[in-house]
Amino acid sequence: MSAKDRSAVVLLSGGLDSATVLALARQQGFRCHALTVAYGQRHAVELQAARRVAQALGAVEHQLLPLDLRTFGGSALTADLEVPLDRDEAQMSSSIPITYVPARNTIFLALALAYAETRGAFDLFVGVNAVDYSGYPDCRPEFLQAFETLANLATKAGVEGGRFHVHAPLVQWSKAEIIRQGTALGVDYSLTHSCYAPSSEGLACGRCDSCVIRRNGFLAAGVADPTRYASLTS
Amino acid sequence: MSAKDRSAVVLLSGGLDSATVLALARQQGFRCHALTVAYGQRHAVELQAARRVAQALGAVEHQLLPLDLRTFGGSALTADLEVPLDRDEAQMSSSIPITYVPARNTIFLALALAYAETRGAFDLFVGVNAVDYSGYPDCRPEFLQAFETLANLATKAGVEGGRFHVHAPLVQWSKAEIIRQGTALGVDYSLTHSCYAPSSEGLACGRCDSCVIRRNGFLAAGVADPTRYASLTS
Repeated sequence: MSAKDRSAVVLLSGGLDSATVLALARQQGFRCHALTVAYGQRHAVELQAARRVAQALGAVEHQLLPLDLRTFGGSALTADLEVPLDRDEAQMSSSIPITYVPARNTIFLALALAYAETRGAFDLFVGVNAVDYSGYPDCRPEFLQAFETLANLATKAGVEGGRFHVHAPLVQWSKAEIIRQGTALGVDYSLTHSCYAPSSEGLACGRCDSCVIRRNGFLAAGVADPTRYASLTS
Repeated sequence: MSAKDRSAVVLLSGGLDSATVLALARQQGFRCHALTVAYGQRHAVELQAARRVAQALGAVEHQLLPLDLRTFGGSALTADLEVPLDRDEAQMSSSIPITYVPARNTIFLALALAYAETRGAFDLFVGVNAVDYSGYPDCRPEFLQAFETLANLATKAGVEGGRFHVHAPLVQWSKAEIIRQGTALGVDYSLTHSCYAPSSEGLACGRCDSCVIRRNGFLAAGVADPTRYASLTS
């Protein structure tokens, strides 16, 4: 069976990376079921971006699942901690950022697995990246491999002979490569949202780690940055 | 550091098994943070049972997390499929039951892991059992081992040198052994709820797989069954 006849689940945050992953999965011919988790992130404007991206890139279904991880706390993305601003890339990669959300990708992949099993899908796509976000433990290839092993033990579909695959096509790409590939596939990055600390109108701050990495990525790719920034000093 | 000074997360459904696990973790001296997931189960009376059990057994904290797995469907516990009644134990173990919820224990353990990481806990307790529920793939020791491996790769706490442990003390026990051990630890099983198809008043049906296993367990343990049944033909 070619990918043309196969369903896949794509974790879609509304950001630049997962939009590119959805485009890649579509290019390979998968029928894509997109999953967005509303986990209480401060940047809820991401959720609207996910809706737009799922539609623009032809997902056959888009589920938005509420799961309030603020219950547990422990991250600048879900609690009232300050998102750091104006750090350079050396500072970002020196330690695990406070924007780390405990066990987030484990939870997201577990939910994608459940969704996949109900849809007869065996392919899970996730936009994690070990280059720009080297500080996140759950973006590393060894984590993804361990999850794939788990998935095949955890499920009825796995026990019955199916074989789940975790696809993380961006894991070793630079942000510039991601943007170049996505642009070649026709991804409209103006639909996506990356900022951790957007203005009340949903404009990007341009200064949080995520904005800095994204801006530098467009610069390095030589692609015009379509992001609407609230203000920029540089 | 002895268990006395350590925090643990205990997955607590409100059923007989997880109540016993909480009692075992408390006996070992753990400060127990109980986690109950409201996943859209038809037997919501379980959630009230979980509250009572957490309090009775001295959990230091009890989180009830809504996560509506009905979004995905695919199980008799969350969708409008009929729960099978009056099956004997041979019938139950002949295949994976339709009460299997896709990837449920993967999701629950992932949530327990997130909760643990925010509380500085490294011990996750879960009441899975590979004897009575041999049909569920995510109740097997090899699944639990794979999750432990994953947990230590997935988290900041794991990367920084901590070591997560998944405790499944009941995994090889019969229901009768579980009931005997719990009774010896003072668990009041009248507080717990196991039935998949309770009456509108929350009384147990006595006929679904879960009730049959529970009733047979009390019989085999020689312990009086405190369950309130809606009606019983035998």
